[in-house]
Amino acid sequence: MQAEIITIGDEILIGQIVDTNSAWMAKELNGIGINVGKITSISDQEADIVSSLKQAMERVSLVLITGGLGPTNDDITKKTLSDLFEMNLVQDDFLFAKVEQRLWQRGIPMNRFNREQALVPDGARIITNNHGTAPCMWFEKDGKVVISMPGVPFEMKGIMQDEILQSLKQHFSTPVILHKTVMTQGIGESVMAEMLEDWEGNLPACVKLAYLPSPGVLRLRMSLLGDNLAELEKIIEEQLSALKKIISANIFGYDDEPMELTVAKLLSDKGKTLGTAESCTGGKIAHLITSHAGSSSYFKGGVVAYSNEVKENILCVNGEDLEKYGAVSQQVVEQMAIGARKVLNTDYAIATSGVAGPDGGTQEKPVGTVWIAVAGPNDLISHRFDLYKNRERNIQVASLNALNMLRNLLQK
Amino acid sequence: MQAEIITIGDEILIGQIVDTNSAWMAKELNGIGINVGKITSISDQEADIVSSLKQAMERVSLVLITGGLGPTNDDITKKTLSDLFEMNLVQDDFLFAKVEQRLWQRGIPMNRFNREQALVPDGARIITNNHGTAPCMWFEKDGKVVISMPGVPFEMKGIMQDEILQSLKQHFSTPVILHKTVMTQGIGESVMAEMLEDWEGNLPACVKLAYLPSPGVLRLRMSLLGDNLAELEKIIEEQLSALKKIISANIFGYDDEPMELTVAKLLSDKGKTLGTAESCTGGKIAHLITSHAGSSSYFKGGVVAYSNEVKENILCVNGEDLEKYGAVSQQVVEQMAIGARKVLNTDYAIATSGVAGPDGGTQEKPVGTVWIAVAGPNDLISHRFDLYKNRERNIQVASLNALNMLRNLLQK
Repeated sequence: MQAEIITIGDEILIGQIVDTNSAWMAKELNGIGINVGKITSISDQEADIVSSLKQAMERVSLVLITGGLGPTNDDITKKTLSDLFEMNLVQDDFLFAKVEQRLWQRGIPMNRFNREQALVPDGARIITNNHGTAPCMWFEKDGKVVISMPGVPFEMKGIMQDEILQSLKQHFSTPVILHKTVMTQGIGESVMAEMLEDWEGNLPACVKLAYLPSPGVLRLRMSLLGDNLAELEKIIEEQLSALKKIISANIFGYDDEPMELTVAKLLSDKGKTLGTAESCTGGKIAHLITSHAGSSSYFKGGVVAYSNEVKENILCVNGEDLEKYGAVSQQVVEQMAIGARKVLNTDYAIATSGVAGPDGGTQEKPVGTVWIAVAGPNDLISHRFDLYKNRERNIQVASLNALNMLRNLLQK
Repeated sequence: MQAEIITIGDEILIGQIVDTNSAWMAKELNGIGINVGKITSISDQEADIVSSLKQAMERVSLVLITGGLGPTNDDITKKTLSDLFEMNLVQDDFLFAKVEQRLWQRGIPMNRFNREQALVPDGARIITNNHGTAPCMWFEKDGKVVISMPGVPFEMKGIMQDEILQSLKQHFSTPVILHKTVMTQGIGESVMAEMLEDWEGNLPACVKLAYLPSPGVLRLRMSLLGDNLAELEKIIEEQLSALKKIISANIFGYDDEPMELTVAKLLSDKGKTLGTAESCTGGKIAHLITSHAGSSSYFKGGVVAYSNEVKENILCVNGEDLEKYGAVSQQVVEQMAIGARKVLNTDYAIATSGVAGPDGGTQEKPVGTVWIAVAGPNDLISHRFDLYKNRERNIQVASLNALNMLRNLLQK
């Protein structure tokens, strides 16, 4: 079962807003067995709307449209669809009363634009919008379904969840779709492809594999299409256990769970606390951890030790070692981790010190050189990484590497 | 001059990632006088790529494609385009050497996938990608230009900025477009629209104004289209000085310069140093500051004081005050700022303490309550903000508000 999404609005085409609606809708549709084959963003122009919709209806049985339903002159979706499906715009009394009440609550008199908001095409099914005043319309023609929804994200999401997803499940007999995403760290895309060549070659035909790289993390996504959920789940289980035999140590989680949440669960399960001592990552690790609700139960705090003075004064790094080995060294990063664990009074501490770039590199320690240490009750481990030339990427990848070192230690 | 964007990748169509590339590209293209008429997201399937590209080439003279250029089997863009334009894939020696060197640096032997990365269509112009190993290809046919770029955002952005935007300006005779973006903080969109009603109403016809809100920052963008750059610049100057008379105190910068860079410049100009003491912002402020090269010259470090223990032990906050007033209080946040300034030995320090949510709110201090303090050589200021219900938004907006308080103090 294939669908397409069309988003209408100039604001997307001039880059003023990012279209986050489509990704959300695609994910929800996937969840009920509907594949999105194409997403198209077009302007508020009648000719564009008509031609894009006609083309989409030739390809698939379901088209979801968002946007262009506001009360102002530039919003023409309702009129255009009404003309296209040869319907007349008539007043919807329920909608009229709702618009009237909203305006009354705000002490605003009704004008022409408001009255037009209550007009709907006489042949369409009107779906209740509990989240605003724009009408949501369900059109059917020649066995095809076209749904028009407002573009405001919370209105669209509300309507989809309240009624549309349920109606679609009833209207179409949809197959089962199953996705499983494996989160990995420490192996690049091409090396991974080589390591998995045999496994990938032997995947059953119903499994589609995708490599999804992002800085520091490579996600492997298996997608399965079928009729029987239990059968698909069994195939996933089998393939997953075969995969684990090859890259077990590099798998840190599943289904888009970020690294810091994997670490958080391990810490919580063991009842242990964490602190950070960051030089080159500059607070990014603390920020990742504290982005999640509940982090205060395992994260006590951190020190962003950007200057050597702070490394010495707060983290008790030896001044002579700083002089002798430099801030980016095994000696210093290990002392930072030990010092953080002590001064923050935590079970574990992670420390980073490196040359993030673009300046500050030397022959011996070029841009991208990063030392990371993890200190625990019975352990002190440290590792040198040779990363990239890009500052943003170095900060991101070093943060993930640091969390991954802690994960490995906690899972030992 | 009209263009279209095509993004290739199943990950967008199943909603696993949001397509942020298109908005960025649309904005940059607008900046050089190229309008984007349509954005299409399609899957990694040959038939889809061919039909979408052919349709787009019928409508416009320029098509930009991102994605599907990785080294793995699911990425087929290069092969598909090569076939479509009737070209052969041949080895690019420069690209081969680059792939080889990258692998050598990491001690990884070259495999089949890497070798295939260095293949390029023999009739395309190959544009240097300084940010990765995927080739960027510029095709021309019947007066139409098709550009294929990697989908990884920082690679695509790097290539666009390094070469493509410049090449497009040369290839197509585009009109002069001038954009001026005014960065403001502290006034919401609808209040701003009311304050600027007269000024906006009197803008010359050639000036288009857009309100671009994001959490904590409202950007006002003036866009001018014309033939004469000097004339457009004169109009911008006049309108800007009129605007400054209305909202001077809320303007912190221009042309997408982020708040932390405005603050960085002020600190550098005065030769002053900064430290941070973060509770609810959890390292975000330090991360924003250290995202920029050269920050070590004014930023000495910070303390992420998530637990009360760290507030007491490292920042010397009075334990009785913590007990009496609570961590989210004027007394505590002021002591955090004073303590940070002392322990980090800096001229200025900013401190935050609040209820980021979703839990932890009380009747008196609901989710979104944030206290922020700034301490300087001769000043101590603090302010309570009542922000939002959303954790991510609270962290972001509190960080910007804290930096803005410091900016105001530095500009006093």
